[in-house]
Amino acid sequence: MINNSLKSEIDIRISRISALIAEAGYDSMLVTSNANLYYTSGRVFSGYTYITKDAEVIYFVKRPVGLQGDNVKYVRKPEQIAEILERKPQKIAFELDSLTVNDCKRLTKVFAESEVCDGSGVLRRCRAVKTPYEILKMKESGVLHDEAYKRIPEMYRKGMTDIELQVEVERELRLKGSLGIFRIHGESMEIFMGNVLCGDNADAPSPYDFAMGGAGLDESLPVGCNGTVIEPGMTVMVDMCGNFNGYMTDMTRVFYVGTLDDMAKKAHELSIQIHHRLVEEGKPGVPASRLYEIAMEMTKEAGLEAYFMGHKQQAGYIGHGVGIEVNESPVLAPRSRDILEEGNIIALEPKYVIPGVGAVGVESTYIVTANGLECVTNYPEEIAQL
Amino acid sequence: MINNSLKSEIDIRISRISALIAEAGYDSMLVTSNANLYYTSGRVFSGYTYITKDAEVIYFVKRPVGLQGDNVKYVRKPEQIAEILERKPQKIAFELDSLTVNDCKRLTKVFAESEVCDGSGVLRRCRAVKTPYEILKMKESGVLHDEAYKRIPEMYRKGMTDIELQVEVERELRLKGSLGIFRIHGESMEIFMGNVLCGDNADAPSPYDFAMGGAGLDESLPVGCNGTVIEPGMTVMVDMCGNFNGYMTDMTRVFYVGTLDDMAKKAHELSIQIHHRLVEEGKPGVPASRLYEIAMEMTKEAGLEAYFMGHKQQAGYIGHGVGIEVNESPVLAPRSRDILEEGNIIALEPKYVIPGVGAVGVESTYIVTANGLECVTNYPEEIAQL
Repeated sequence: MINNSLKSEIDIRISRISALIAEAGYDSMLVTSNANLYYTSGRVFSGYTYITKDAEVIYFVKRPVGLQGDNVKYVRKPEQIAEILERKPQKIAFELDSLTVNDCKRLTKVFAESEVCDGSGVLRRCRAVKTPYEILKMKESGVLHDEAYKRIPEMYRKGMTDIELQVEVERELRLKGSLGIFRIHGESMEIFMGNVLCGDNADAPSPYDFAMGGAGLDESLPVGCNGTVIEPGMTVMVDMCGNFNGYMTDMTRVFYVGTLDDMAKKAHELSIQIHHRLVEEGKPGVPASRLYEIAMEMTKEAGLEAYFMGHKQQAGYIGHGVGIEVNESPVLAPRSRDILEEGNIIALEPKYVIPGVGAVGVESTYIVTANGLECVTNYPEEIAQL
Repeated sequence: MINNSLKSEIDIRISRISALIAEAGYDSMLVTSNANLYYTSGRVFSGYTYITKDAEVIYFVKRPVGLQGDNVKYVRKPEQIAEILERKPQKIAFELDSLTVNDCKRLTKVFAESEVCDGSGVLRRCRAVKTPYEILKMKESGVLHDEAYKRIPEMYRKGMTDIELQVEVERELRLKGSLGIFRIHGESMEIFMGNVLCGDNADAPSPYDFAMGGAGLDESLPVGCNGTVIEPGMTVMVDMCGNFNGYMTDMTRVFYVGTLDDMAKKAHELSIQIHHRLVEEGKPGVPASRLYEIAMEMTKEAGLEAYFMGHKQQAGYIGHGVGIEVNESPVLAPRSRDILEEGNIIALEPKYVIPGVGAVGVESTYIVTANGLECVTNYPEEIAQL
């Protein structure tokens, strides 16, 4: 084992992955992405995890030096995998939704006698249902996330810009142990450590598929803060990284300065009501799309659909699975085919952008339990004055 | 144009890219990575830049809404590209070293009548030689990077841990305008905002191909700070992100607490001497490998090769191209085939790890000019007491 303290946990994961490998009709799978190397070994390393349908595992390690264990084999290059493996698989699965074409070409030559299949779904499905150990990690992350957010009101100073406030939130999160990085599946989204969106900047469309945009400080990273001075009448949406231990909680809370606009108040309260309703409805067996429908129905009833999930540009979901990466399964969108399962962990984020005011709405992270959703990000949901 | 203020700059880049497309025998290229979308348009967007060998450009944009220009075409999905293009290329190049297999499969169907080739090298070669505009961006980034580093001595407090110091450096960089993100080509390296390495933690091997390692705070991101309390006799290496405007300067400076170990002092001075020598030698036409050889020769002469570029695990290079990403061409390694060209921008980082003391050595970013290297990161090179 690469990480001995996690042996029984890793055994559980490998056993589940191998069952899915067998179910898909593959003989083995070669894991290549950092997120899944971490998932299959308990630590990030440079190399490959090789898993068979019979739950045998070999860790082919390039770096770092010094990892120990019976099933650790050091290689300088992937071609050595072929020399080490005694039995070649007939069908091998790669992570074709993250592996680059050039890396795949090289690995395909390593497994020249095998048929290469797409195993991306195997790990996506497996990771969507968290183990008790992973649920504990998410709860630990949630507690630290809450503690950092508690300090936000005292960070605010009159005349501050959005980025000045964000930098103080970043510092507090880092001092509480945040690792800072946001792991995101695929190259479609980039972010630094999260977003603080004030006033109309919340309505600036971004290229990334986040729920809210923001113009950003530079066209090389056009998302989030844009230097807006926080002024009376604006809302301040804080949606910052909750990665304290490799598992990310997602939490958005909203503040305001001066007087709160009536429609913003109404929309924020609606978001809280949606959360409370979904906490009851979000049970194993419920289609993920149903949660979106409920949020949309409640939004239409309140006449707020023009502001739902953005205004100039609207996002097409109200939540997403979260764990090692911020965009895991299930997807909470109208056309999602995902069905909620016990052990899913989801972030719900019904949000609204009110022109001239800013963004409102709560985001929290929940565990799907037999009785409904259990929240792990428990900072008060109410919109608070700064 | 997507970014009108940059029209003439983008014209220069497109003209160079199209010449390289023609030289390689392709008819056109489809750009897909965020780094190259930014390079070819002046801003990150979700979509594709299509460039022909005759320097025609179309920006196929999915998000954000509202981008304007004659050559902007909105698409919801890549299949619409085929409907819009009047003339299909016979040979089309994709970025096969960053495009995933599944995305490539989909795009290959879009260009079903075309032969798909690997155009990764086209953009890598083009971006290796910076335009005057890009050089200016690097200089601007260098000035801000210097200004933030100037504040480091006053951030130190007795009894501080490495991460506590790093958080203050992060804050200062962010307040000076750092965008925070480190763009890295390929999935092999992950980092948050840079590394502060104190004492023996500098010798902890990491999975990533950075010059120095560090155990990290968590096995999900095993690099950098590990919570070491900064104590007398230790060195403190600061290697933090210099991305203030989409172009990254790379700069490492070293401090110490208490008394400086003799060998560490000698190794740090050697690093400075290597820099001074390479500033003279680094001219257009010189093989990039020659810079590595000179550094290695000087290191061997001083009897320090056991500590060069790490101790338990040694990195196999002394520098790298830098720009939009931190690992661009040319590569300064023994087997590199790159030849220095005027307009290359390189980070040189001859570093040493002294067991029981920590890491020493300077990293600076240089422009390759006809007369040698011009430094853009000008904070004093000397090791300074905290």
